[in-house]
Amino acid sequence: MAKYISQGVFALERPVYIESRSSVVGRKEGEGPLGKCFDMVVEDSHFGRQTWEQAESQFQLEAVSIAVRKAGLMKEDIDVILSGDLINQCIGSTYGLRELEIPFLGIYGACSTFAEGMLTAALLNDSGAVKRSAAVTSSHFSTAERQFRTPLSYGGQRTPTSQWTCTASGAVILSDKGDVRIVGGCVGKITDMGITDITNMGSAMAPAAAGTIQRYLTATGTTPEDYDLIVTGDLGIVGSKLVKALLTEQNIDIHAQHRDCGKMIFDNETQDTHCGGSGCGCSASVLCGHFLPMMERGEISNMLFAATGALMSPMSLQQGESIPSIAHLVHLRKEQKC
Amino acid sequence: MAKYISQGVFALERPVYIESRSSVVGRKEGEGPLGKCFDMVVEDSHFGRQTWEQAESQFQLEAVSIAVRKAGLMKEDIDVILSGDLINQCIGSTYGLRELEIPFLGIYGACSTFAEGMLTAALLNDSGAVKRSAAVTSSHFSTAERQFRTPLSYGGQRTPTSQWTCTASGAVILSDKGDVRIVGGCVGKITDMGITDITNMGSAMAPAAAGTIQRYLTATGTTPEDYDLIVTGDLGIVGSKLVKALLTEQNIDIHAQHRDCGKMIFDNETQDTHCGGSGCGCSASVLCGHFLPMMERGEISNMLFAATGALMSPMSLQQGESIPSIAHLVHLRKEQKC
Repeated sequence: MAKYISQGVFALERPVYIESRSSVVGRKEGEGPLGKCFDMVVEDSHFGRQTWEQAESQFQLEAVSIAVRKAGLMKEDIDVILSGDLINQCIGSTYGLRELEIPFLGIYGACSTFAEGMLTAALLNDSGAVKRSAAVTSSHFSTAERQFRTPLSYGGQRTPTSQWTCTASGAVILSDKGDVRIVGGCVGKITDMGITDITNMGSAMAPAAAGTIQRYLTATGTTPEDYDLIVTGDLGIVGSKLVKALLTEQNIDIHAQHRDCGKMIFDNETQDTHCGGSGCGCSASVLCGHFLPMMERGEISNMLFAATGALMSPMSLQQGESIPSIAHLVHLRKEQKC
Repeated sequence: MAKYISQGVFALERPVYIESRSSVVGRKEGEGPLGKCFDMVVEDSHFGRQTWEQAESQFQLEAVSIAVRKAGLMKEDIDVILSGDLINQCIGSTYGLRELEIPFLGIYGACSTFAEGMLTAALLNDSGAVKRSAAVTSSHFSTAERQFRTPLSYGGQRTPTSQWTCTASGAVILSDKGDVRIVGGCVGKITDMGITDITNMGSAMAPAAAGTIQRYLTATGTTPEDYDLIVTGDLGIVGSKLVKALLTEQNIDIHAQHRDCGKMIFDNETQDTHCGGSGCGCSASVLCGHFLPMMERGEISNMLFAATGALMSPMSLQQGESIPSIAHLVHLRKEQKC
């Protein structure tokens, strides 16, 4: 039983915990400041497969396999798995998870996909329909660049506001076992402030993040001080400034609590990533590789995870449309279960 | 509270009803055998917009608006809406629903999307996290043809096993009010029998439908005779034969109960649609325009709705992959609420 708080905002009443989590990243992410946090760093961008799309599928399969193994489970123990990715028709997910034969719900939230998957999975557990669910997502620099921007071999110049799509995957398994509890969430609303610059996604997504964080704080009657951290997905350097400015205008100051996975995964000085990392796998791998272990170790005990996604396509931009964005929020709390 | 039955199979215990439903179709669908069933037939394939993609968005927006209006609701009364479609990055949904400002969960199940949305939405209601949810999806002949096959202006020859993507949308609103109850469901497993012919989607999807129907019947201890109808999404003429043959091999005979939305929406003799209709909007509009009204009128009282989706992309096929498929099942029962 979940508790209805307001439109799209809820608290879980049944115990839903993160039983297991995993992160698998590419070489560049492994060379970044969080490199030692991840379960696996894959040096080969093809991950032993023929194409980049197949490689991305392999990242997802590996992430789920590690999470299952770490919990001492079999794949048959998972009642449902939620996944999606950036590639057209989400083939990173469908081909990656095909061989697992786990009941599958495909989702699409662009780079917000991991938060969307976690909150939906948590509600399925909470309903009692499933005992154990999983959420996973991935992104791959090479699949995303050629689909959304230009073929890699063109060597296109990147603008200062651009972000670097992470080659990464993260997975969680949710059940009634674990240390970190999902206590609530907020389903995002599609937000479009008219940004049309595909190389400035942080600015397009920041209003969605600000809106979702504000909705959750207001609905739950909490303030930023009630949380150790308020983490956004991949707003990057520009978007992070913007989300804080937008919230400050609403008298909500998150400067002390705010972290952004996109800013953290690369060292901009040495890795030439401009505004930071992006892609579904960015926030998924940083949450699973960095923040969840921090909670498990007791370094933080209460955090909001708000992953953002830009919901355009190359075709919608070619047709002159602006970039609709969304942010979904998951509220996590360290809560040792007896 | 939902009741766990087996992996991916559940029964709802809280009352979750279809409070409202709507269907909006294009001219060709309106000229078909079910033409008089739909809430709206749109003669203009651009629906007054500049591009086909924008037109598809308009179909979704119109379908949701009609469903909201028929129930005497405001859009603010919907706590969460689930939607997805076939266009890359699901822009039919994201741009279509953008202006509604309803908390949004993007889903992707190809032509199974409507069943996926209904069963997930029903579980969100059941959990108590939302009081009223909606599910919607769409497809458009012209957006799908140029994305998945060839530009329309090529005038490409269609093979005998091909299906015609419907220009259509269907929407449901779920709450504790209504006549038709969602009593259970089954989350599909990704199934791939090695079919690589993109013009024979019925054959690719039939094994997924057979698997899901068998799983639900087995888990619930029911037989086809317990249902008035067992409806598949858009297997078309070839896929419909195949699903019945596959189930017969398992000693499950659904010949008397089986209907297929893809076979029903067009008249193959006069409309030159080869194996029938397809697309997310096909089963959504036929369920909402034809089968749900039959239940409301008391002509049938117990039915299974199993929509199928083919989870490939043009790129995965170019890379030599086969077509993974899925089928999600929703169990509907007429149950007059006091």
